[in-house]
Amino acid sequence: MTVREIIERHPRPISLDGDVLLRCIDECFECAATCTSCADACLGESDVPELVRCVRLCLDCAGVCDATGGVVTRQTEPDVGVVRATVEACVVACRACAEECDRHAAHHDHTRVCAEVCRRCEQACSELLASMG
Amino acid sequence: MTVREIIERHPRPISLDGDVLLRCIDECFECAATCTSCADACLGESDVPELVRCVRLCLDCAGVCDATGGVVTRQTEPDVGVVRATVEACVVACRACAEECDRHAAHHDHTRVCAEVCRRCEQACSELLASMG
Amino acid sequence: MTVREIIERHPRPISLDGDVLLRCIDECFECAATCTSCADACLGESDVPELVRCVRLCLDCAGVCDATGGVVTRQTEPDVGVVRATVEACVVACRACAEECDRHAAHHDHTRVCAEVCRRCEQACSELLASMG
Amino acid sequence: MTVREIIERHPRPISLDGDVLLRCIDECFECAATCTSCADACLGESDVPELVRCVRLCLDCAGVCDATGGVVTRQTEPDVGVVRATVEACVVACRACAEECDRHAAHHDHTRVCAEVCRRCEQACSELLASMG
Repeated sequence: MTVREIIERHPRPISLDGDVLLRCIDECFECAATCTSCADACLGESDVPELVRCVRLCLDCAGVCDATGGVVTRQTEPDVGVVRATVEACVVACRACAEECDRHAAHHDHTRVCAEVCRRCEQACSELLASMG
Repeated sequence: MTVREIIERHPRPISLDGDVLLRCIDECFECAATCTSCADACLGESDVPELVRCVRLCLDCAGVCDATGGVVTRQTEPDVGVVRATVEACVVACRACAEECDRHAAHHDHTRVCAEVCRRCEQACSELLASMG
Repeated sequence: MTVREIIERHPRPISLDGDVLLRCIDECFECAATCTSCADACLGESDVPELVRCVRLCLDCAGVCDATGGVVTRQTEPDVGVVRATVEACVVACRACAEECDRHAAHHDHTRVCAEVCRRCEQACSELLASMG
Repeated sequence: MTVREIIERHPRPISLDGDVLLRCIDECFECAATCTSCADACLGESDVPELVRCVRLCLDCAGVCDATGGVVTRQTEPDVGVVRATVEACVVACRACAEECDRHAAHHDHTRVCAEVCRRCEQACSELLASMG
């Protein structure tokens, strides 16, 4: 992801642990795009009434991941409290979305893929929080 | 705001306390737009180097308020844990942005206005959390 | 809307016709929130399979209106070509969403409300384009 | 990018030319994240007053690319007029941002990287438009 190349050229010192931070940025933006796509794939299924909660949680997760991706990307004058609270919200949104997506994984393979991406993002966010002490 | 009219016509029962919820929705979207505008006004000031932290926190706050506005607007199959974590992040982002904006209020009246909107949004979010018990 | 108060205090001269611009900003953010809410209300209806195209166009319109709202809000160093192309896309997204919402207005009053908001936004965007010559 | 895996499992036939579409989706989301990061890196530079137009166009481009990424990702009931108008706006936003970023490339390597990503996204969008006939 090119954000890595921008951050390597950033004038300010990188906040937090670099590898953990970059993984969190990657996963947040990846998860936002994946959840946007999974919500749309659910909407195209013939059993869409069974997938309403899945669409809803994918939309929530996409929005929260996108906002979190922005917050953790920005390296100029970060506020540690804002970073922490936003990443914590992202953990919760990813976990809820992964659990709902998993419930439909046997019938809809795209929800299985989406659940995996959500769990990777949840993990990357949790590791960033752990690295913040 | 027209979201009120949509929610009054929504097929599902409204989650949470209606008045408190609608105020939170209003304030989140209002604060997202206001912080977008304040970041841009800061960028146009001749002393922009003094306002870098203000721009950054306005961008964070705009993104978090927009994501939170989406989460609290959606009434179909809400997940109370996701609502709570997102609204909590919004409280933190609004408070940090208001504090920074206030530091520049004597020299830049737009940051004074923005700080007021951020505090109103922080208050509306806190009241929604309190109503959730 | 508080964006008006920020723009009145903005250090740079306002781009374009002030009243037309402010109405366009208002309507873009209003339409983004309304379409977010209408997509969710459609998702909560028992006949959601009939409303799939409506959900989809509401999500498109919400995203395009939000991006356009940001572009027209920013008064520092605007690029007239970017403003024009974005506002033109917003006209198209609002018109398509209004037409689809209207098709369901007899059965779902929230789509009637959403169609009205989309048409107001389409009109405000068209007037901004006309004012740009 | 995982969106590819979701779209391969999507219940509806893929709209447009698959390879061209997937490249456009990739580039839009990549460009949105890159412009978010470049705007922030500019904000952290000691000569930020020289970079104000660059920050502004990066913010415009990030918003337009993100909205366009959503529109082209969704494969359920797409409206070809909305796809076209949004992708056209994205071409314009990417070109304007690339031109401004290039003006600072000798002094700030992150703007050189960002300009490259914007031009790749402009190209991918133009190819999608060409494939639509």
